[in-house]
Parts: sequence; structure tokens; C-alpha cells
Amino acid sequence: MPIAKKIRESFAKQGLMATLGAKITAIETGKVVLECPFREGLGQQHGFFHAGVLASLADSACGYAALSVMPETADVLSIEFKINLLKPAKTEKIIATGTVLQAGKNVVVCEATVSDASGGGRVFAKMVATMFVVHAGKD
Amino acid sequence: MPIAKKIRESFAKQGLMATLGAKITAIETGKVVLECPFREGLGQQHGFFHAGVLASLADSACGYAALSVMPETADVLSIEFKINLLKPAKTEKIIATGTVLQAGKNVVVCEATVSDASGGGRVFAKMVATMFVVHAGKD
Amino acid sequence: MPIAKKIRESFAKQGLMATLGAKITAIETGKVVLECPFREGLGQQHGFFHAGVLASLADSACGYAALSVMPETADVLSIEFKINLLKPAKTEKIIATGTVLQAGKNVVVCEATVSDASGGGRVFAKMVATMFVVHAGKD
Amino acid sequence: MPIAKKIRESFAKQGLMATLGAKITAIETGKVVLECPFREGLGQQHGFFHAGVLASLADSACGYAALSVMPETADVLSIEFKINLLKPAKTEKIIATGTVLQAGKNVVVCEATVSDASGGGRVFAKMVATMFVVHAGKD
Repeated sequence: MPIAKKIRESFAKQGLMATLGAKITAIETGKVVLECPFREGLGQQHGFFHAGVLASLADSACGYAALSVMPETADVLSIEFKINLLKPAKTEKIIATGTVLQAGKNVVVCEATVSDASGGGRVFAKMVATMFVVHAGKD
Repeated sequence: MPIAKKIRESFAKQGLMATLGAKITAIETGKVVLECPFREGLGQQHGFFHAGVLASLADSACGYAALSVMPETADVLSIEFKINLLKPAKTEKIIATGTVLQAGKNVVVCEATVSDASGGGRVFAKMVATMFVVHAGKD
Repeated sequence: MPIAKKIRESFAKQGLMATLGAKITAIETGKVVLECPFREGLGQQHGFFHAGVLASLADSACGYAALSVMPETADVLSIEFKINLLKPAKTEKIIATGTVLQAGKNVVVCEATVSDASGGGRVFAKMVATMFVVHAGKD
Repeated sequence: MPIAKKIRESFAKQGLMATLGAKITAIETGKVVLECPFREGLGQQHGFFHAGVLASLADSACGYAALSVMPETADVLSIEFKINLLKPAKTEKIIATGTVLQAGKNVVVCEATVSDASGGGRVFAKMVATMFVVHAGKD
């Protein structure tokens, strides 16, 4: 899957993902999974994962899920996302699963869940995000 | 303002804010301003600020704006936020200004803008966030 | 299921649902389905369902899904919702399915899809909504 | 302002606006104001305005605010909106003010407030919405 190579290369350029310690767990057509272990430097004031980490991970998972269904020459940009924080993310590792809800020519809508990767199946957050597609050679 | 001291102490415990290199610029009743300089480790694939950094900063600015209008013994938790990314955040430093839209007993709604701190007045993002208030001694 | 009776009575008091011509299709624990046929008076400028009708229906479906998992004496109020409009809702009848994502003591998060009820399985919209729970006898 | 004529004609075609009893109060470049009086048929179970009415009005106000800054041949479609319900909308008449936050070539982001038109200045709801621009003669 050439798109997987493209996604891995783009991910490697996202400085924030390295700063968070995130990595890619799976790439399928229409679905990308990222994970991130906890450390103090990702916490909020009570020592849980900061909501911003969940949002960052879910946003990248959505963006790459969108990219996985686009032509190889296209790029995507987040234009908005909303995240509902369902439970305090008190765990060792989180996993963000982004999937495509609807892929149009210019706009792709994705959703993501952020779950507990250390077992138990808790869902910490739910995102729905809109990506704008930038086609190569178009202004 | 004793609440400013409480906000500074809570902010200092948010490991993510230190990881991002963010700091508090201003605290007023109903308004908190945070700023964060750019470095590669906060970027997305094109070298702009990652949307997750904007979201993290705006979420903390909203949370502390909410805290600034609450009794000293209360705490707040983000239950959801949405961010619209208006322009690519290609700049040296961003500033997130969180303000209170409506403060109820149990729920506080805040909005934030993320702007260019290096001059020019560009607005990169707009957030509206809901905070849940946890009152001390209540389950 | 006494909660079904309570939901039907509350629905009957929502003047807007009568104005839209909406009715309840199904009530289960954690899930409520509403439907609404098209007429010109529900349209936008191109003669499709107005996004506001989709939002109204999805919001009520989410609210009643939340109510279905609460104690009989509780009430719920929408505090926010976001809807992504995936495709123009050009059809004879829409169906909104609201389900509970996470039920806490004070806050219930629900999601809804709005789909084509005339066959074909198209999904027109996706909502995620937050409901605040009002417990009887509490201020 | 030829765009005002176009907005009034489009508004007149929105069957839902007539059903709600809404009308246009003001049109300026980048700003459109709509109002809607209360009647039982617009209520939720406690006799306040249903959140769906606020959302419908705010969505149309945002859409027409976006249209007011576009070329005359363009059209706009809502792709998503989020509304935060700040207070129960218990009043005689509501007014929705939509304004443009950022106008791009393909995407326009707007915000709206829904307020009490019967005096007192209460703000019932806040929306941020994304509009997609459809340019004439382009697929």
C-alpha cells in the first residue's frame, strides 16, 4: 500500500508526534491507529493525560485516516474538530483510532475514539473532525 | 487575587504545558492568556504549529478562565471543546486568550482565540469549550 | 418499560416535534429512534431538508436516549451539540437514531446519526451531544 | 447591495424559515440578523424554545452572513455547526446574529449568538459554523 508509506513519512515529519512519544500502530484503507504512552510531561494538574494530548492524537489519526482514502498526490488539512471527554484518561497508554465517515472530493469527515490501551476497554474521548482536501496542482 | 496564585500553581502542575514550553501571560477575572513559542517539536508535517498544540493551549486557557470566576475550593474539568482552524499557524509564537461566556453553578462555557503573537493580528483558531465544575466536598 | 411512557409523554409536549411532523419509531434502553417525512415547509433553498431539521431531530433523539438510562425522576437538558452534515438530505423521510456513549451522574454524552429512511442507507449527518442531568429535588 | 436581494430571495425559499415564523432583521456585509417569535409549536417539553429552533435560526444566520461576503454567483452549504446552549430560551422572541470569522475561497467560518429580543440582553446560545462555498460553473 503506497499510501501507507506516504502516511509514515508524513507522520515522521510531525514534530509534535515525536514530542508526545506517539507512534503508528496500524494503517488500513479508511482507518489509522496511533498510540501514546503516559509520562508526566503529558499530564494535566491531576496527573492524567491532558485533554490536549488526546485531541492531538485523535486529530492526527483522523487526518491520516482521511489521507488513506485520497489520491496519493493529495494532502489534507484539519479545518475543525470537536472532542468530547468521556472519562478522565488515567492510564499507562492511550490508543486513538481514526476512521472515515464520509469522503467527498473536497471534504472528508472522520471520527476517532481514544481508548485505554492497557486493557479494560474504557473509551476516554470521542472526536468528529472535518478535513479539507488539497489536490496537487490546484490553487 | 488569590485565584491567580491557585491558577499559577495548577498550571505549574500541567506537565504538558512545560513540554510545550507554554507560559501564562495574563490572568484577570474571567480571562486567562497563555503563550507558546514555535519549535520543530510542536509542528505538523509542513512545519506549522500542529492543531493539537493550538487545541491544548486554548483548552488550558479556557479551563483557567473558568477557574478564575469560581470559588477558590472548586475545580473544573473540560467535558468538550471544538476548535475551528481558520488559518495555518505559521508563526514564531502563538497566544491563546480564554474568556468566560457563561458561568453557571455546575457548568461554565468559555471561548478562546489563538492568535499570532509576533504581530499582524492574524487569528489562527477559535474554540468554544464546556467545563464541568467540581465543588469541594461534593461527590 | 415505564421510562418509555415518560419519554412518549415528554415527546408529546415538544411542540416543535409536532410542527416538524416527527414521531417516535423506537425506544430501547440507551437508544431512541425518531423519524420525519419531508414537506416543503422543512426545506432549505434547494428543497432538501434544512440542516436545522436534522439537528432538531438528532437533538431530541439524543435527549431521549439519555433519558432512557436515567432514573425516572430525572430530567435532561442539552448543553451543546455539534452536527456534521455529510450529504445533502434530499429524500422523502429521515430517521434519527440517538444512542448513549457515556452516562455519568451529571452528564450524559450521546451520538446520533440521521439517515435516509426511504432506503439506500445513506447517512446524512452525525451528531455528538452533551446532556446535563437534572435530578428531582436538587437545586 | 445586490447581495441583499439575493439573500432575501434565498431566505424566502427556505420553507423551514416560514414554518418557524422567522424573518430577516438586518443584512450587512459579513453580518445577517434573523428573528423569530415564540409560539407553542416551537417549544420543548417545558415550553421554552427547542434547541433545534435556536440551531436552525443560527445556522441560517451564519449561512447568509457567509453569502454576504461571497461573489454573487456563489452558493454556500453548511458542513458542520456546534451550538452551546447557555441558558434556557424562555422568552417571547429570539434574535440570531451571524457574523463571518474567516472567509476563504472555499470555506467560510462564521459565528452566531442567539439572544433575547424582548430586552435584558440575555444570550441563550453560541454557534460556530463552517460553510463550504460552491462556485458557479465548477464541479
